[in-house]
Amino acid sequence: MTASPDALRQAPLYRVLHALAKGETSSEALTGACLAAIARDGNLNAWTWVDAAGALAAARASDERRAEGKPLGRLDGVPIAVNDNFDIAGMPTGLGLPGHPGLAEEDAHAVRRLRGAGAVFLGKTNIDEAAFGTVGRNPHHGDVRNPVHPDRAAGGASAGAAVAVAAGHAIAALGSDTLGAVRIPAAFCGLVAHKPTFGEISCRGMAAALRRLDCVGLVTRTVQDAGLLLPVLTGYDAGDPRSRKRRVPLSPPDWVPGELKAGVVADLSVLGVDAAVAESFSAVMARVAPVFGSALPVALEVAPLEVAATRRAALLLMEAEILAAHEPRLEGASTRLRWLLDFAKRKTAADFARADLRLDQHVVRVRRLFEQFDVLLLPTTAAAPPAYGADEPANLADLTALASLAGCPALSLPLPGGLGLQLVGAPGSDLRLLELAGVIAAVADTGE
Amino acid sequence: MTASPDALRQAPLYRVLHALAKGETSSEALTGACLAAIARDGNLNAWTWVDAAGALAAARASDERRAEGKPLGRLDGVPIAVNDNFDIAGMPTGLGLPGHPGLAEEDAHAVRRLRGAGAVFLGKTNIDEAAFGTVGRNPHHGDVRNPVHPDRAAGGASAGAAVAVAAGHAIAALGSDTLGAVRIPAAFCGLVAHKPTFGEISCRGMAAALRRLDCVGLVTRTVQDAGLLLPVLTGYDAGDPRSRKRRVPLSPPDWVPGELKAGVVADLSVLGVDAAVAESFSAVMARVAPVFGSALPVALEVAPLEVAATRRAALLLMEAEILAAHEPRLEGASTRLRWLLDFAKRKTAADFARADLRLDQHVVRVRRLFEQFDVLLLPTTAAAPPAYGADEPANLADLTALASLAGCPALSLPLPGGLGLQLVGAPGSDLRLLELAGVIAAVADTGE
Repeated sequence: MTASPDALRQAPLYRVLHALAKGETSSEALTGACLAAIARDGNLNAWTWVDAAGALAAARASDERRAEGKPLGRLDGVPIAVNDNFDIAGMPTGLGLPGHPGLAEEDAHAVRRLRGAGAVFLGKTNIDEAAFGTVGRNPHHGDVRNPVHPDRAAGGASAGAAVAVAAGHAIAALGSDTLGAVRIPAAFCGLVAHKPTFGEISCRGMAAALRRLDCVGLVTRTVQDAGLLLPVLTGYDAGDPRSRKRRVPLSPPDWVPGELKAGVVADLSVLGVDAAVAESFSAVMARVAPVFGSALPVALEVAPLEVAATRRAALLLMEAEILAAHEPRLEGASTRLRWLLDFAKRKTAADFARADLRLDQHVVRVRRLFEQFDVLLLPTTAAAPPAYGADEPANLADLTALASLAGCPALSLPLPGGLGLQLVGAPGSDLRLLELAGVIAAVADTGE
Repeated sequence: MTASPDALRQAPLYRVLHALAKGETSSEALTGACLAAIARDGNLNAWTWVDAAGALAAARASDERRAEGKPLGRLDGVPIAVNDNFDIAGMPTGLGLPGHPGLAEEDAHAVRRLRGAGAVFLGKTNIDEAAFGTVGRNPHHGDVRNPVHPDRAAGGASAGAAVAVAAGHAIAALGSDTLGAVRIPAAFCGLVAHKPTFGEISCRGMAAALRRLDCVGLVTRTVQDAGLLLPVLTGYDAGDPRSRKRRVPLSPPDWVPGELKAGVVADLSVLGVDAAVAESFSAVMARVAPVFGSALPVALEVAPLEVAATRRAALLLMEAEILAAHEPRLEGASTRLRWLLDFAKRKTAADFARADLRLDQHVVRVRRLFEQFDVLLLPTTAAAPPAYGADEPANLADLTALASLAGCPALSLPLPGGLGLQLVGAPGSDLRLLELAGVIAAVADTGE
């Protein structure tokens, strides 16, 4: 063994897989290093549940399989972090709420897929209360701290998932993304996040936040890592009512350099983007221009999309669905959360239907947009990460919501200072998006 | 010309197409015969708007195209009836409500497709008030009368569509089907109805009743006629937020005689099916048994599906969506409708989310069922058509709702006495269902 487990726990997934395959380290050593880091970093409040014994046993079993030349799948022995709104058999699903839920009996679909590929589950990571928030605030398990920018918010709602990867507690993380919940903390913590096309990964066993938007999301250190995880997770599942049979695979990455047409958001101010973010975005756009060759970018006006108003409509749906799905567990919730949910309690069924109708209109508007270009480029958030403990900015998820509200795949690449560059594609174009993001990351030196 | 327009207006679509192609009749003569029948049958209250001049002009234009050897498409010159909840450019979309809405500026997607294939639009057919009902009751345009069983209800909500076809006013009709609205009146009037897989036909320009279930439905005289219309209508439409890209066509009709496994509902009493319907259903099942050869039917227990309770949950969603989408037009609605909608007004957004969640659970349960068989057979309604003017039975849509609630395609074949035999398939299996229905209609002598 030639690679230090402490270096590898902070390495990209593809590097870790290489090291495990070559025998440069063992899963047990790597898992042990992750667990030691988790124990040292308790102040980050990244974890709500750690299963050290279970993880080490799974790591040893993986090492035995490798010794026999029979690894289970492409992730055999890789320590993974999982958001605390996914079920993992034998662990509680805390959902960022108080109280002591029972232990889950079955793995969520995504967890089962990863387990089938050999992943080692370290435990569950902390999220905003009821997965409702964007800064990693949790009054029951402690606010999640940002290890990269310690005086800044970690982002949310999949805060612990991003922090676990950023701090080298796990090689990659499974998060959830309804309106931006993996992309925001990934950007704030200098990581890559991929929210796939709606419906591509089954949400069975992931607690509902807003079912028509909920997606399983990935937090990784590189674009390539996301590309390694995606095929393990995608596919039809009869147990998710929104999963649909796709009789052919995702669009192949059929990108021809210089021919792909980009849409670039031109009226960033409409989305409340501040000067520093706009400047950083312009600088990146200048660096990536050669990628698009002779195909001129489309200067896109997003004002007609009314993203902010539609995101507010989505919040009503989310609040109502949280009440419907989790009401018994909301006792003991914070005053803030109960205040938010009380808003939904005063709304009628017809108000819900009206808000839902508004989302329908957004879907059609965004579909029409993608008749003009292949990929849409915009910042991940409108501002740099807010100061730790500061009030949650109201528009923090507007730029990520644009894709979520329309079921589009989106990928966030890290930029300096906790910012992110977001790529959004038409539904089904995840593989093309991953390939393009890899090229952009190389050209733009995004810090990935 | 050798075929009488008066005989042809009551003939199957495939016969009409043959007669038009051979020059046995003209579209103008056929359209004229339909318009004359409509005028004679005013007492049926089947129509809310008739555009005689427009229809005749379209028919003449079709005849000119044919004379030049350039028919527009496979329906050139065929008189079609359209439910009054679809937009037809230049006609009002009444929706079964009082008042005088403006004239629609654009065709609904399905209308546009039919027009592109050369169809002639006679006008708009009467529906239950706000498309909310199952017996063809409309206090503003008159209750729709059943021309086949005059002392019985016509069925609903697409009552006029079915009656127009049954009375020979049109060769086929475009209806809507949310919980059974084309299948019920088709059965009551001795016709075939096809509700395709959810999302296969765009609902753009069709007034919303319950968006997650709303389907464009077909009423025809034969299974073959439905098979002729379907390919004209299906396909992706960016303008319908629930339309999805399908990169391969619908499942081919890959049915091998004697190998297709049928699920036959065994506990009909759970669905409130009365003795006469159960007896008729058993008799048909005995006649069609040879179709399934050595593959034994699965005796299916539907009690665990709790269809009635889930249908009631769907009604809350429908009421809320009608309020949300059409509230300004509900002034002047009947006491009955306002009473029903008042129920929804007292429900909260979380009640809506809970009901919607219940539908999600039904989707998963029905998907699991189709792991056991290829086609599900059950009656279309639990009882014979109720007496005209009698109270609307509460469970009239339970047997049709089973498929609707899960997005499955369903086809109703006519049986004597206003009854129907329903075939339900897994999502995407419409073509297989049509082929099988054709065989069953031939074997079982369903009166089609």
